[in-house]
Amino acid sequence: MKEFIFKISTKLKDEIKDPEGEVVEKIAQRLDICKNFKVKKGKFYEISILANSKKEACEKIEELAQKILINPVVEVYKIENFEEL
Amino acid sequence: MKEFIFKISTKLKDEIKDPEGEVVEKIAQRLDICKNFKVKKGKFYEISILANSKKEACEKIEELAQKILINPVVEVYKIENFEEL
Repeated sequence: MKEFIFKISTKLKDEIKDPEGEVVEKIAQRLDICKNFKVKKGKFYEISILANSKKEACEKIEELAQKILINPVVEVYKIENFEEL
Repeated sequence: MKEFIFKISTKLKDEIKDPEGEVVEKIAQRLDICKNFKVKKGKFYEISILANSKKEACEKIEELAQKILINPVVEVYKIENFEEL
């Protein structure tokens, strides 16, 4: 078995309101750091997986993202990095 | 003023236990997706900011990260992308 490293990022779809980003904007205004900016928050997962082939690793990562990491109604995911050790 | 786009990622320091990553590992095992893997979770922020210069934008972003986005005792941040529009 080989080790594969993935980085998956997830975030709310563009049309969905992002309350956590808005909180950062408001606090920054209140602390007088900055007034003119927009924040969108997301999550990422660095995943190390043992699999027999790249194909198997990718299939498991897709399954993991769709079943566990996101709510497909409001979120999207993107596999950002891939590395074979 | 010009618009600058930053992407900042934050995560727990390597020596700090990551319970959210462990939850993903356990659920994946329970759903029989995969047994051999490790997950580390983090957050990212896509930030659009208006500033007079790149220097000013960078200073504000550093201040924002240190004062609002992370707890410096247990977390680290990294500016991943920078773009000037």
